Amino acid sequence: MSDSLKIAVAGLGTVGAGVVDLLKRQSELVARRAGRPIQVTAVSARDRTRNRDCDISGLEWYDDAAEMARDADCDLVVELIGGSDGVAKAVCEEAFAAGRHVVTANKALLAVHGTELARRAEAAGRALGYEAAVAGGIPIIKALREGLAGNEISSVQGILNGTCNYILSTMRDTGRSYEDVLDEAQRLGYAEADPSFDVDGIDAAHKLAILAALAFGREVDFDGVHVEGIGLISTTDIAYAEELGFRLKLLGIATATDNGVMQRVHPVLVPADASIANVEGVFNAVLTEGNSVGATMLEGRGAGGGPTASAVVGDVMDVACGRMAPVFGVPVDALAPAASVSIEERWGACYARLRVLDRPGVIADVTAALRDEEVSVESILQRGRDPEEAVDVVLTLHETSEAAVTRALGRISALEAVLEPPRLIRIER
Amino acid sequence: MSDSLKIAVAGLGTVGAGVVDLLKRQSELVARRAGRPIQVTAVSARDRTRNRDCDISGLEWYDDAAEMARDADCDLVVELIGGSDGVAKAVCEEAFAAGRHVVTANKALLAVHGTELARRAEAAGRALGYEAAVAGGIPIIKALREGLAGNEISSVQGILNGTCNYILSTMRDTGRSYEDVLDEAQRLGYAEADPSFDVDGIDAAHKLAILAALAFGREVDFDGVHVEGIGLISTTDIAYAEELGFRLKLLGIATATDNGVMQRVHPVLVPADASIANVEGVFNAVLTEGNSVGATMLEGRGAGGGPTASAVVGDVMDVACGRMAPVFGVPVDALAPAASVSIEERWGACYARLRVLDRPGVIADVTAALRDEEVSVESILQRGRDPEEAVDVVLTLHETSEAAVTRALGRISALEAVLEPPRLIRIER
Repeated sequence: MSDSLKIAVAGLGTVGAGVVDLLKRQSELVARRAGRPIQVTAVSARDRTRNRDCDISGLEWYDDAAEMARDADCDLVVELIGGSDGVAKAVCEEAFAAGRHVVTANKALLAVHGTELARRAEAAGRALGYEAAVAGGIPIIKALREGLAGNEISSVQGILNGTCNYILSTMRDTGRSYEDVLDEAQRLGYAEADPSFDVDGIDAAHKLAILAALAFGREVDFDGVHVEGIGLISTTDIAYAEELGFRLKLLGIATATDNGVMQRVHPVLVPADASIANVEGVFNAVLTEGNSVGATMLEGRGAGGGPTASAVVGDVMDVACGRMAPVFGVPVDALAPAASVSIEERWGACYARLRVLDRPGVIADVTAALRDEEVSVESILQRGRDPEEAVDVVLTLHETSEAAVTRALGRISALEAVLEPPRLIRIER
Repeated sequence: MSDSLKIAVAGLGTVGAGVVDLLKRQSELVARRAGRPIQVTAVSARDRTRNRDCDISGLEWYDDAAEMARDADCDLVVELIGGSDGVAKAVCEEAFAAGRHVVTANKALLAVHGTELARRAEAAGRALGYEAAVAGGIPIIKALREGLAGNEISSVQGILNGTCNYILSTMRDTGRSYEDVLDEAQRLGYAEADPSFDVDGIDAAHKLAILAALAFGREVDFDGVHVEGIGLISTTDIAYAEELGFRLKLLGIATATDNGVMQRVHPVLVPADASIANVEGVFNAVLTEGNSVGATMLEGRGAGGGPTASAVVGDVMDVACGRMAPVFGVPVDALAPAASVSIEERWGACYARLRVLDRPGVIADVTAALRDEEVSVESILQRGRDPEEAVDVVLTLHETSEAAVTRALGRISALEAVLEPPRLIRIER
């Protein structure tokens, strides 16, 4: 058996401890499959004395992770510090400069500096593995980069944030409010103390930008992602969605259009019998449309120590076996420029909920506004009657341009009987 | 850019023509991703003059595929002839003997001679790619072999035959009989003129044996697969299953037990809200349980020219990039012996439907038989009353050993009021 692959792990939180533990506990299995032993030689974290779920005795300790990346006796650095800049970035740069491979779970880093890091990896002739950065344990990066490499991809979309999916699933199951369920998710550890990163869609947007770069062979363009979170979703909308045969999900969607790639993260209504509609709780799923393979969907746990460690170790084993691939599927110089298409160019169906005064003529005014923008109504639903009081009017609109819908909802907002800004949720079939 | 990878294609049916066409039509994309051009140099099929969906002008033609594998100017042979022996096997043997890589979609060949062919590939230092042999375009082989390689796998199971899944889905949707739906499937081209290979579960068993070898690092053991098809499934059972909150699927299931690996293909009732329950029509899906990643599911088209060509080309591109892996995840000498555990050792829940004379005391006799074998009843359902005529009694049984259920159903069969052999369908939650 060949020499061992030596790795240094920067960051010993849940994932880092999981990686160190897995490589120790299953060292024999890993060595048999990788064709050589994989050995953790060095670790770095903020606090050396903290209790951890892994045994770090006998490993070289570094207080400074960047120093470890530069100096440690290793072939590969695992970066699990997180954050788009600062130490995490320095660790990767030092590692490549010293001729080491890098494996990371850091979606923010890849979303913001992915192209630059890919260039450094390529220049160094080393791997940059990031399976763990997108959809946890689901091997979607490998699938897109290698398994489906014979396909021209037309769209990649998915449930990319388990916290949001848990909140939406629980709201539907229990009828409880967003605030109430978020509060519970925080107590259960499914949501951070400051949940904005997740619930505002930023985390999903990071992952989507990475997926889009790989699927379409283009530079990573996080800034080009249109992002809306789930903060405005109400149980009312979820209930109406069910009644109309839909389920509400926060999706990240990247599609090839005639003018370039459109990237967007926002709440979506999907048909209740679609595969992705039935991905519930903390699970993630990624749906890919390829011109030869058709639709494929990969589903699994999108976060947590075990699933993320599984992805990290998979990448490490690829390096151990000498299995290399261009970071984003093609050499960096062959990546298409990053310019993204605005969501204003979306062409699709929508759901809109209006809060209106229940009085004669309101529906006529609303439909006139839609007609004036050439937006065609599929259905109108008004539950209950309550003259001169506030009631919900729920519309579904046929496929049309985002710009036209925006203009039509602007007109509707201006109507005297419309009490709140309309709630728009896009429909994807 | 490096030299081109030259490939020879044996078999020009739907898949072979799809591969030749894809590599020509998307040659630029493929070369960019693979880092070098991939060029078909030679082809072989039964009839040179037949009209095909691909352009073979300029390619070297061989009437004898084995001769092509030996003599053609190529680095890799794609075997798409099919069949577990004969020409297909000779093509692979000649290719390895001549130092070429092999990519195949041939599940029968791998299921019967997989270990031997893996040994030949390893001895030659060449790849044996078989992504296309299992679940069509779904990159499950790559996922198990590489992406999830850090995991100890405890089970791998799936919907592995699109014909059966189409028939069962359509029976459920339409209430039509097995014979009627099979007839339609044959007219639509979803089922062969002789459908026995599919509907008897043999095709799914081939695929399961391959998955089990890879997931558990053991020799391929097709003979060790317990196989039952869908020929005895009635709309009655499907309707009762729905009523009980289940959906009926033909699953292939391989699980690690204390005594070895159990492999079985048979109809199964799964909870209606399980992800796999919602995989309908011609789609396939494979569910893997790993000790670090937890549950993952991959879903997509399990057959057809496009999806299968996608898998073949993915394997070819791995070779072009020099990405190698042991055929069944570990070197052949490290594979565990093939001995499989009998289904008699299954421990699980069951559904049983009895056709009985509607008369007092029948249920008491049936439950006494179950009690005598220590089989515990979860529910008993008798729809309708029709004294002294035949009625259905549907039982669900708590988790127990397969052997005990077999004995209990034997006792029940012997009861005078029981008119037909009981129909047993296993429940997997």
